[in-house]
Amino acid sequence: MTATFDTDRMAAVIYGSEKLASRRREISAAVSRIPELHDSRPLPFMDRLEKVTEMTRKLAALNKHLPDIIDPNDYEEGLHLYHEVMGMEGHPLALHEVMFIPGLIGQGSDEQYEKWLGRARRREIIGCYAQTELGHGSNLRSLETTASYDPSTREFIIHTPQITALKWWPGALGKSSNYAIVVANLIIRDRNLGPHPFMVQLRDEETHRPLQGITVGDIGPKMAFNGGDNGFLGFDNYRIPLGNLLNRHARVEEDGIYVKPPHAKVGHSAMIRVRSHMATGQAWLLAHSLIIAVRYSAVRRQGFLEDKTREVKILDYQTQQYRLFPSIARAYAFIFCGFETIRLYDQLILDVNKHGNTSGMADLHALTSGLKSVVTYQTGEGIEQARMACGGHGYSMASYISEIYGVAIGGCTYEGENMVMLLQLARYLVKSVELIKNGKSKELGPMVAYLAEPDTQEKTPLELKDYVKLFQMMSKRQSWKATERYLKLVEGGVSRDVAWNKTAVELTRASRLHTRLYIMETFIRRVSSIEDMNLRMVLRDLVNVHVNYELLDCGIYLHDVSLLDSIKNQLYSSLHSLRPNALSLLDSFQFSDIQLRSVLGRRDGHVYENLFEWAKSSPLNVSDVLPSVDRYLRPMMEKAKL
Amino acid sequence: MTATFDTDRMAAVIYGSEKLASRRREISAAVSRIPELHDSRPLPFMDRLEKVTEMTRKLAALNKHLPDIIDPNDYEEGLHLYHEVMGMEGHPLALHEVMFIPGLIGQGSDEQYEKWLGRARRREIIGCYAQTELGHGSNLRSLETTASYDPSTREFIIHTPQITALKWWPGALGKSSNYAIVVANLIIRDRNLGPHPFMVQLRDEETHRPLQGITVGDIGPKMAFNGGDNGFLGFDNYRIPLGNLLNRHARVEEDGIYVKPPHAKVGHSAMIRVRSHMATGQAWLLAHSLIIAVRYSAVRRQGFLEDKTREVKILDYQTQQYRLFPSIARAYAFIFCGFETIRLYDQLILDVNKHGNTSGMADLHALTSGLKSVVTYQTGEGIEQARMACGGHGYSMASYISEIYGVAIGGCTYEGENMVMLLQLARYLVKSVELIKNGKSKELGPMVAYLAEPDTQEKTPLELKDYVKLFQMMSKRQSWKATERYLKLVEGGVSRDVAWNKTAVELTRASRLHTRLYIMETFIRRVSSIEDMNLRMVLRDLVNVHVNYELLDCGIYLHDVSLLDSIKNQLYSSLHSLRPNALSLLDSFQFSDIQLRSVLGRRDGHVYENLFEWAKSSPLNVSDVLPSVDRYLRPMMEKAKL
Repeated sequence: MTATFDTDRMAAVIYGSEKLASRRREISAAVSRIPELHDSRPLPFMDRLEKVTEMTRKLAALNKHLPDIIDPNDYEEGLHLYHEVMGMEGHPLALHEVMFIPGLIGQGSDEQYEKWLGRARRREIIGCYAQTELGHGSNLRSLETTASYDPSTREFIIHTPQITALKWWPGALGKSSNYAIVVANLIIRDRNLGPHPFMVQLRDEETHRPLQGITVGDIGPKMAFNGGDNGFLGFDNYRIPLGNLLNRHARVEEDGIYVKPPHAKVGHSAMIRVRSHMATGQAWLLAHSLIIAVRYSAVRRQGFLEDKTREVKILDYQTQQYRLFPSIARAYAFIFCGFETIRLYDQLILDVNKHGNTSGMADLHALTSGLKSVVTYQTGEGIEQARMACGGHGYSMASYISEIYGVAIGGCTYEGENMVMLLQLARYLVKSVELIKNGKSKELGPMVAYLAEPDTQEKTPLELKDYVKLFQMMSKRQSWKATERYLKLVEGGVSRDVAWNKTAVELTRASRLHTRLYIMETFIRRVSSIEDMNLRMVLRDLVNVHVNYELLDCGIYLHDVSLLDSIKNQLYSSLHSLRPNALSLLDSFQFSDIQLRSVLGRRDGHVYENLFEWAKSSPLNVSDVLPSVDRYLRPMMEKAKL
Repeated sequence: MTATFDTDRMAAVIYGSEKLASRRREISAAVSRIPELHDSRPLPFMDRLEKVTEMTRKLAALNKHLPDIIDPNDYEEGLHLYHEVMGMEGHPLALHEVMFIPGLIGQGSDEQYEKWLGRARRREIIGCYAQTELGHGSNLRSLETTASYDPSTREFIIHTPQITALKWWPGALGKSSNYAIVVANLIIRDRNLGPHPFMVQLRDEETHRPLQGITVGDIGPKMAFNGGDNGFLGFDNYRIPLGNLLNRHARVEEDGIYVKPPHAKVGHSAMIRVRSHMATGQAWLLAHSLIIAVRYSAVRRQGFLEDKTREVKILDYQTQQYRLFPSIARAYAFIFCGFETIRLYDQLILDVNKHGNTSGMADLHALTSGLKSVVTYQTGEGIEQARMACGGHGYSMASYISEIYGVAIGGCTYEGENMVMLLQLARYLVKSVELIKNGKSKELGPMVAYLAEPDTQEKTPLELKDYVKLFQMMSKRQSWKATERYLKLVEGGVSRDVAWNKTAVELTRASRLHTRLYIMETFIRRVSSIEDMNLRMVLRDLVNVHVNYELLDCGIYLHDVSLLDSIKNQLYSSLHSLRPNALSLLDSFQFSDIQLRSVLGRRDGHVYENLFEWAKSSPLNVSDVLPSVDRYLRPMMEKAKL
């Protein structure tokens, strides 16, 4: 089947510009010509130590070749190069560029830049960001690590008071980093001033051995990211100089006087940025799994439809399309939504910097909390469906989809556990409904203005705006329902915390609907703005799959479920319409075979012979007879014969 | 919190008898006293070769100790002992007892028993069952391996005509088995008589080397089961004697005359048995993950509710209960449903053997297809929710939940891909509706009689029978809707295959509803029959969670969605009621720490110190400085300083 559009042009839409899309192709081509940058053998054949070694080898090779391949100052080019070469299983510099250096820039003073930034950028030192503790994740306020100021020596004493206070999980902490930004409670004269960031040297720069007073190591194998060394870190009254408190915002004077930061909300902004980028990152992971599944579904044949002389491609089954196509739509939706959210974020930062206007921060913080939660969950769901759509071979590591799943699903937990995130958004929704109830609708942010709209009669949606309207009504009703349930409990004398807990599930439902509405709206808006008619037409088909699937999936929030019969008809016919373009919509992501690392997802479709080659080269086939057979099984069989 | 019932008594309900429950405790205690039967170190620290070696070691040890621990002729005792010692990651004898020996018994003649059965039982030989091929899974008819009869030598020539015909996936095939039952197309004088089972020796009994003409090996790493050696197998005109066709049912005479089996449907019965047992097996996996999550949720504390002096157990959050408790209900429901289905199966076998009455076979085959599909999917969903409910530590292999997930979710694919299974059940439902439409309601089996019931007015359910009634109406309507959609297409001139495909998603919806109704009914029936009042009361709470959760989850099939408001209230209040008994409901499964293999799920609750011990002993922490750091990272940092 031939697609009705040009995949290079679609790539420009996906990656935001013609230039980046074409640079990506050039970078992939360059990498393909440098064997030193390729995996030395398939990653699934390696144990953890081998994976970490392989990743470290590639980092060193990349360090050498990078200036010949990309503009080192171009973030997007660097991102693509790292994805291509390093893949998704983590590596020893995983936190250095994305958390350590930005953390230093965001929280260090000019003097501190002088001291560490150049060294970090040149990679004289490797750093990470150590915040989460063994006993404390989401809640920053319950961190237990202390940094007590000792004015007599002008030092902070960093200490781990008990086992639950061990730093736990930070990426690249275990074996690679020799420095870390450590978040610890600043204690001055027995007064706890809350969590602050400190620059801490962990290992000797010559020998790389942990310094006296530091306990550091790897936290062991995980569901994924096993090429990375997430670590633990404990301190035994470890002393660092006064100058190691990162003091762009707050500082401590030599005599122990604490100087507060001008405004405390700055911390939010990094979280908003990370969570917005997560939508795009998750969309890529989803697209990775989908292209593998869709390519394979066009190779695998089973059963008969019209033509009785040849088995059909399994992609022609409606059940297969139903498993895969709504996720293609979501992958695009998440990308567009990520763009729009980052745009909103950039606007917000301008506002903050220009006019000191931080009012949008709460809106966007709430929104990105919900977005992160919905996107990560739906991505995981979509990847697993893609894997299962490949039947048995999806279960083999040769598909690589289960690795992608492991990586993506981590997103439901890191950067804020999803339930906690949904309840953060719910706070904002409840406050908004309360504003309306108190006659202050005018104070609502633009994203929640629909909460004040009157209910309208439900009717079969014909145009896209009808779907949005229906979704707005569903979302509005759920926000109101949850708010009123909560308020009724409070009015009945239940404490706010308990009432909130008794309404929690209903509140998360409201948050999901609000977020899904936002995703749908941004998807529609972005597609309407595309000028290339061929692209717009196929994306319009994709939007049709999306709006019908979403509405059906949220059908219980309608008043009139009889609408769903026509929604289903539209959905099934939109799946059928999308079929000829499905593969090209995914080819448009232009993932190379090197990046995909999947035997099933090979561009050339030569799946079976390559599965066989892959299997033959796997570690258990080095010898015909395993040592364990000689040692245990053969003696067992021999003895039985006696 | 104290439970309102006795967990030993509940264990007797879960495992079907007091005796078995108490024998399980004794067996677990016996295993705990024999260090040779324990994992020599945590399985997640091992690579594949080490896992396979460890499993083989334990098999040999088990072979030695088994007669001292259990009655070797008691299937249930053996099952428990194997679970306890071997765990769930597969092993070299995985197919020997459950497929090879039963396959030989079911398909071999008395003479063939004589030749191989004793040897197999004594473990002089190790066997597996090789059916699935690289290019062909679900559809037995498209298998490509051939067994051509050569009357001149009275041999079959087994051959792999092309790469897609390689046997692929069979457990224990790759490195361990020296014999296999191979399913191949019997060819006599160029006539293909379809798939038949052959006994084939693969490896030399002395050297264990593959015999001439045999290509055999391991298929490489998988999402789970990496302690097992799923294999590939190819034949190059490999000759076996005439007597190796397993000929209990069909046989070939020396001159090549083919003697047909008396009735061809016998093959179904093994599938029904396996799929019924899958419901119970999956329930155990679900319970495994739930006990880990619930125990950890009673250890982990975060945030405040009523008491402001101490953080609450996260199990007290409604969102956490909502994630976990409906799955506890499902684990119980699946077990009871598994029991009932096996009972129906046993009854059926009696009918077949006594009266040659195979009429129930189609009903039960259809039902178990749906059951397998719904149970495996919901189990996977429940396990992932359990893992995520543990936050970051759920993602660590120390929780072991992601391993459980990998094992369980394989069930969505093996023994019949879930979509294919749902569509098999749908055939039966459509036929049933057609019977009704043709005025032949009396011919309906008892399980589908409700499809002929008139629609009733929907009202808020008060008693359990009201929930069943609502579910029957929902299921009935969907079966009718899908059937009529299909028939309308056929009447409009669309071919049956194409019409079926265009209705496929609606058909799977009908199958799921029918299956969920069956699960609900058997759950309610079993609980009502329990005499111990304390057990019945808590199980009644569990049923309440179940029926409300199920109804809400299938809410779009109601006519009147406004009912859902009261359903939600009942659901939230039933979660609350279950809270004091949640942990004990899972403790009742009486999984030992040895079997759970989970640091988070330890019975003693000492999670944090043991996470630390576990991490410290993991492979990356053998040395303070990794060789890869010395080789790649330190030179990189040194060079940067120049």
